[in-house]
Amino acid sequence: MNIETGPIPRLPRGFRDIPPEDVLLRERMIASVCSVYRRYGFEPLETPHIEYLDALGKHLPDVDAPDGGVFAFRDDSAEWVALRYDLTAPLARYVAEHEKDIVFPYRRYQVGPVFRLEKPGPGRFREFYQCDFDTVGAGSPAADAEACCALADALEAAGVERGGYIVKINNRKALNGALEAAGVVSAADGSASDNSLVVLRAIDKLDRVGMDGVIRLLGEGRKDESGDFTKGAGLSNSQIDSIVKYLRASGSGRTDVCDTLFEAVKDSETGREGVSELRAIHDMLSAAGFGEDRAVFDPLIVRGLAYYTGPVFEAALTFETTDERGEKKQFGSVAGGGRYDTLVERFLGRKVPATGASIGVDRLMSALKQLLPPDASAYSAPVLVTAMDPSLMPEYQKLVFEIRSAGIPAELFTGSGGFRKQLKYADRRNLPLAVICGEDELNSGTVSIKDLLLGRELSKDIKDRAAWVDDRPAQITAPRSELVATIKRMLSDNIK
Amino acid sequence: MNIETGPIPRLPRGFRDIPPEDVLLRERMIASVCSVYRRYGFEPLETPHIEYLDALGKHLPDVDAPDGGVFAFRDDSAEWVALRYDLTAPLARYVAEHEKDIVFPYRRYQVGPVFRLEKPGPGRFREFYQCDFDTVGAGSPAADAEACCALADALEAAGVERGGYIVKINNRKALNGALEAAGVVSAADGSASDNSLVVLRAIDKLDRVGMDGVIRLLGEGRKDESGDFTKGAGLSNSQIDSIVKYLRASGSGRTDVCDTLFEAVKDSETGREGVSELRAIHDMLSAAGFGEDRAVFDPLIVRGLAYYTGPVFEAALTFETTDERGEKKQFGSVAGGGRYDTLVERFLGRKVPATGASIGVDRLMSALKQLLPPDASAYSAPVLVTAMDPSLMPEYQKLVFEIRSAGIPAELFTGSGGFRKQLKYADRRNLPLAVICGEDELNSGTVSIKDLLLGRELSKDIKDRAAWVDDRPAQITAPRSELVATIKRMLSDNIK
Repeated sequence: MNIETGPIPRLPRGFRDIPPEDVLLRERMIASVCSVYRRYGFEPLETPHIEYLDALGKHLPDVDAPDGGVFAFRDDSAEWVALRYDLTAPLARYVAEHEKDIVFPYRRYQVGPVFRLEKPGPGRFREFYQCDFDTVGAGSPAADAEACCALADALEAAGVERGGYIVKINNRKALNGALEAAGVVSAADGSASDNSLVVLRAIDKLDRVGMDGVIRLLGEGRKDESGDFTKGAGLSNSQIDSIVKYLRASGSGRTDVCDTLFEAVKDSETGREGVSELRAIHDMLSAAGFGEDRAVFDPLIVRGLAYYTGPVFEAALTFETTDERGEKKQFGSVAGGGRYDTLVERFLGRKVPATGASIGVDRLMSALKQLLPPDASAYSAPVLVTAMDPSLMPEYQKLVFEIRSAGIPAELFTGSGGFRKQLKYADRRNLPLAVICGEDELNSGTVSIKDLLLGRELSKDIKDRAAWVDDRPAQITAPRSELVATIKRMLSDNIK
Repeated sequence: MNIETGPIPRLPRGFRDIPPEDVLLRERMIASVCSVYRRYGFEPLETPHIEYLDALGKHLPDVDAPDGGVFAFRDDSAEWVALRYDLTAPLARYVAEHEKDIVFPYRRYQVGPVFRLEKPGPGRFREFYQCDFDTVGAGSPAADAEACCALADALEAAGVERGGYIVKINNRKALNGALEAAGVVSAADGSASDNSLVVLRAIDKLDRVGMDGVIRLLGEGRKDESGDFTKGAGLSNSQIDSIVKYLRASGSGRTDVCDTLFEAVKDSETGREGVSELRAIHDMLSAAGFGEDRAVFDPLIVRGLAYYTGPVFEAALTFETTDERGEKKQFGSVAGGGRYDTLVERFLGRKVPATGASIGVDRLMSALKQLLPPDASAYSAPVLVTAMDPSLMPEYQKLVFEIRSAGIPAELFTGSGGFRKQLKYADRRNLPLAVICGEDELNSGTVSIKDLLLGRELSKDIKDRAAWVDDRPAQITAPRSELVATIKRMLSDNIK
């Protein structure tokens, strides 16, 4: 490398290039998911990657600087703009801006990259895709039920088999009802004590620490295996009993969960409302044919975002995978959402009911890579037409176009270097076949086709060599007129 | 609107939201174009939207601030980063960064938004899509010929019929040869006098000012209709004759253009090389079956970018359109490209031959909107299942899922408001059909389906009312079991 030359070619920290297979797999996945969204009557919208910082709601009120977590800068009019950090904030801006023209309920989906100025790590990037759909202006639990159905159908369309995922549904109102019933939250104004967060965190830990652990965390506290002590919420025994009653609703059928929940929250109006919404959702799911194999009620679902106000849901993949520590565990959540009514409040000063969900594109991609056959990305490496004799280039061009006309990706070698280098090129790029046409072939009206994948197989696994070579020669010479037919046959042999 | 509430919902200057039809039309267009690229053996690559400013080559060397035209800002490590302004600069960074691992020729395509901090105007936005393909490390004119073929095939795949476009090819070397022959450029070092830009601008104006105008612009200068005088290049008569000889090559068949060009540039080595490359390209085009109806040689093609070093080409649509001033003219250029060898020079200090092209996605979109039938975006507005009686929601849910199962987009009304408001909603959203099921229908085992498009037609065109109503009733009551069949029939009537 020349020292005098300038910049180092490198990517900013936390960013990455996406290789061909992943570009195509993601494209295919998103196309499947979006076709489901459209079938549900959602229409696409594309907002720009840049918004005014105040429209995103990330401007610190008293300081002339943006909140952390967003890529923000001043534009040429010295106004603060920022790269969108999700697709919901731009939706809010869009709905508020066009409020007069939109016919509600407004149902839109959007897919695209979002940007976070956060500490990058393994699998955590500063640019990643989201795939959202939302219904704005619909207060009915029917809209929440539909969102759950759409998530399930979207996962199936993407290639997750039925039984391989589960949509878990809860209702924040039922949860709040349980907190009210336990006296952790005040029924009068719904205001939460600081303690309610400790309680929610304890509930959220059930699958890691077990019911016994949660009970400790709701009480005095819990010591883990390493001896570390986590201070508890300090609830009384009767308060703890009340929460445990709520938690025990988990794990049974949808109507049983509703019955148990009702018992746990019946003293709270919010709680009763929450359970009644869940019953409505159950009726809708059942009418739509979504049984317990696809959607369950799970009182443990909390969902981090503070703004959820009613039903919340997440979709988890149930197949086993190996985590970073080599331990087997369920793959887990790939999508989530819920009801929120504060979408446009920042702009319009009033609440508008909305519900929606977001698929974590990278999470789902990484699952599909484990679930789908390796060629699912639809990436077909091209057949290489080698250029043995530069004076025959127009002849090679004819060959390559004949192959392409049959719909088979094909490429003419246009670089520099002789035949050997061309085969090496094909090999390093993992191309399946090389078409060869020299003086001999030209004169005898034939072409030769080299099976490069077979060549690579053979060099890997010498003992099977004899068997392979018997029914699958590494190079075939065919009449010129049978070029495409021969290539097709060899490619289908390759796939086998 | 509440005055106390904060920000105004608005977009930054020069940015826009893309409506559903356009999102879908663009998706479909890009999918068609990219499938052609893949058939040519190009593989997809996705680089991030953000790069280091110095990697993009837009850092002013002596000033600690970015060049104009790019959105640049400091990241959390205080390094300058910028939104990519095209897809070629990131390709250069990628190739230089992975030089050791890439097997050349490297053939990649990339599609995505790019960002320009330029003055926005009608049809000029600060964020827009590009769709590029390039071959890096291929010096052969075969690679240029292929790029031209790929452009033509891509336009056809997108929906432009053969005959509706033309790929125009020139060679910078032939052009430089003509300038050398005329003594405008020095053959020794290829260095251009300031005058050569004036000459190029004059050549570029041929289709607006005619040969006579160009001759004046090459000489003393030209007065236009308004009386404005443009100072000319001040060439001598023999110099002008030389350039005119070059220009006269335009308008004939590819081999004739080559012959005429050869006469015009034969005293220049560069010029002869340029013509010989054009002849090679002609041979390749002919071998691939690309006749004069798809690709012509046009000595007038200059292409603005300074970095082109060999063949240059652009694809123009030939159908007539009406410009902003109401004048009829050819739609014109939608794609362009050429050979350049400075791609990675900034990083590696040496030249690597490369050739490629870029489709202007917005230009092509706007052409397709005029060329394709209005439903080409594949956007199907959903069928609305109205919710007359809230207690029947699960029944409505069943209906909507039945329709969706048949692959027809359908939506259950989940907003607030009675039947009248629901029909108004369907009307304002331009939905085709509304499914109605009240107590009566439920009891008699039927559903009613209202033809909303017909309703809108009728209210537009009263005189045809009788005819319409005769063979196409605005509302049909069908047995419940014939719901989907009836909807399908009514939708296909709608399309007619």
